[in-house]
Amino acid sequence: MKILGIIVEYNPLHVGHMYHLKFSSNLVKPDFVVAVMSGNFVQRGEPAIIDKFARAEMALKAGVDAIFELPTVYSIQDASGFAFGAVALLNSMNVVTDIVFGSETNDIRTLSKIASLIVEEPKEYQRLLKKYLKQGLSFPNARRRTISDLLSHERIDTDQIRYSNNILGLEYLASLKRLSSKITPNAIKRKGSSYNEEKIFEIPSATALRKAILENKELTGIPNSSLKILEREISSGRGPIFMDDLFEVIRFKTLMLSREGLEMLYGFNEGMAKRMVDALKSSNDMNEFLKKIKTKRFTFTRIKRRVLYAIFDVKRDFVMQSNEFGPQYLRLLGFTKRGKQILRRISDRCSLPLISNVSNFNKSLRKRNVNIPLAKKQFEFDLKATDFYTLLFKKESERKFHRDSQKPIEI
Amino acid sequence: MKILGIIVEYNPLHVGHMYHLKFSSNLVKPDFVVAVMSGNFVQRGEPAIIDKFARAEMALKAGVDAIFELPTVYSIQDASGFAFGAVALLNSMNVVTDIVFGSETNDIRTLSKIASLIVEEPKEYQRLLKKYLKQGLSFPNARRRTISDLLSHERIDTDQIRYSNNILGLEYLASLKRLSSKITPNAIKRKGSSYNEEKIFEIPSATALRKAILENKELTGIPNSSLKILEREISSGRGPIFMDDLFEVIRFKTLMLSREGLEMLYGFNEGMAKRMVDALKSSNDMNEFLKKIKTKRFTFTRIKRRVLYAIFDVKRDFVMQSNEFGPQYLRLLGFTKRGKQILRRISDRCSLPLISNVSNFNKSLRKRNVNIPLAKKQFEFDLKATDFYTLLFKKESERKFHRDSQKPIEI
Repeated sequence: MKILGIIVEYNPLHVGHMYHLKFSSNLVKPDFVVAVMSGNFVQRGEPAIIDKFARAEMALKAGVDAIFELPTVYSIQDASGFAFGAVALLNSMNVVTDIVFGSETNDIRTLSKIASLIVEEPKEYQRLLKKYLKQGLSFPNARRRTISDLLSHERIDTDQIRYSNNILGLEYLASLKRLSSKITPNAIKRKGSSYNEEKIFEIPSATALRKAILENKELTGIPNSSLKILEREISSGRGPIFMDDLFEVIRFKTLMLSREGLEMLYGFNEGMAKRMVDALKSSNDMNEFLKKIKTKRFTFTRIKRRVLYAIFDVKRDFVMQSNEFGPQYLRLLGFTKRGKQILRRISDRCSLPLISNVSNFNKSLRKRNVNIPLAKKQFEFDLKATDFYTLLFKKESERKFHRDSQKPIEI
Repeated sequence: MKILGIIVEYNPLHVGHMYHLKFSSNLVKPDFVVAVMSGNFVQRGEPAIIDKFARAEMALKAGVDAIFELPTVYSIQDASGFAFGAVALLNSMNVVTDIVFGSETNDIRTLSKIASLIVEEPKEYQRLLKKYLKQGLSFPNARRRTISDLLSHERIDTDQIRYSNNILGLEYLASLKRLSSKITPNAIKRKGSSYNEEKIFEIPSATALRKAILENKELTGIPNSSLKILEREISSGRGPIFMDDLFEVIRFKTLMLSREGLEMLYGFNEGMAKRMVDALKSSNDMNEFLKKIKTKRFTFTRIKRRVLYAIFDVKRDFVMQSNEFGPQYLRLLGFTKRGKQILRRISDRCSLPLISNVSNFNKSLRKRNVNIPLAKKQFEFDLKATDFYTLLFKKESERKFHRDSQKPIEI
């Protein structure tokens, strides 16, 4: 039996994602498709445009058989932490045979070579990396130069790792290696617009779609089933949610934590805390705030992730532990009728507790061999993230706590 | 030379306060009047209706010669902590000869007797207090019963300590005793409406005035000079600020701290943390929230103070230390031309560093024998309180940080 595992955000789901899903299925010919998806906060350091249950529903309507939540501590990390959390979840199921990821290339041989360097960190790799970091390059850039130097004789285009999707792909491969996973990795070439392009082509970028939603423009390139869900969420007053909506809260948190408090958190090194405190003094909206923090070394995405770390008080130890031990539970967000079969199989074979009912969380932990304190911290973070996200809903009457107590979506 | 010291909030200053000032002056016949005033957060656990500098200006226009800020860690405590901080400040100046406080009675002999019991805590007092606390009475009620029992033979009306102004008066007397202060205490009988009455008589209550401001009604019983300042602040977009304005922030903080986090803070005993977390789940505004927390044991004022403790992360140790060592600096908010003379005298004789320029704070500390870490914590709290208060201003362009960097008001 072939089971395809995919890692998604669907923020929102568009025809590019449909293309990816169809192409992956043609490649793997799976019996079932399972997905791991970011919850209410996504890898670009932003709140998702609509709630995770609605996005899970989009996925199910688009052909995913069962969808699981990537714990927030991974979903808002950089490529490496995000990929590790997601791959570890897929691997924990003990049923997934293949993963397929989009990348700018489908040259899996080269990507694998690079991934090996990243995982194995040979001496020469370490030396060069140190050298470039000392020269003041950011970590991603230093790493790219290092890999480029090491593979220069191989006549391969190491510029590939410049693209964000290739970076993620590399990290997926590296995580599979780290976990000694038996899952077969596959890469397919992305079609359509490049990651940050903000025009709506036939195949849009999620960024372009979010912009169109913000500007209340007509949405093209989004499948009908997704569009209906999106419109339902918006008209119910539960969205759309944007980064801007976090401004009041980050202002309050930055003020209260001040530099010393921020420096206790994950990711606040290299003067980031000071920059954030200083930027706050003269910013009247999120955009101004982020621009004032921006340096060559800190991309907007890195800064936005740190905004979330500040809002949620994400401690260094917690992230370190999570990155060492991996996710401690497998949270089911939704499934199709067909998906019930694969769910049963996952439930039997999964190395982590399968959580389909939040109120049984503690009981579920006891049955498996997990790091219980870490599991509780990860889960508590997810619940807080949901409750906080709920407070951002446009309509007051929708701001009800404990949305996570609802049953998984079933279609 | 006679120097009158008064303890005020002026939230806002009204004719009742003028009456108090005039009557006190007639009683003491002082050469100068100095005042200690709560900053931007006041003893009833609320933000002040307008900024502390504006309220200081009101005081100066009304006849106060120099006005100083009660550090926030005292201004938002119960009667005992509030009184101790304020009296300690007045005492530290080493120039104040008299204090006058309003109370429901002017029977200073009885009040002094009660205060002695409170300070000296004789064995029988301790025994009775314990007994009543065990019976489930709140601390203020248990203490009242204890005192009533102990003084029953004296044929004095111990019901006096039921009134909020008498409670404060008692605490002033107790603090003077604790500090072995040479300042002479005087009590004058309050005229006008009782503390919580919400009608505007000739002499209004501050509560009634704030309600009238909220409802945009005509304000009576407020001197012209104060009215002008109040109107200027409101039309500039810096006020009025109400408890309601803190709802979003307390919602966020309660969610993020959750029960465990709240229980680490000052004042969150007796199930208060749980009540607050539970109340939040179904409250859409501050009023609802406070009502849901309310029990017989917790007055609204006590709950509101705890809302502020949660917003500012007020730690138990910090309050305990502050209540042990007292305020560590004397912050000047404003003075009149006349007041310069008394300021010079205070500057010479004061046991605490006199802070008139925030940027010299650290330097000022070195000159006096103060607990520097505590001084810094108290001062940092004041600065945060001001910056946070500034974020509540109605007009975006007025929300500038570091209002505390401005010079003291001089008129």
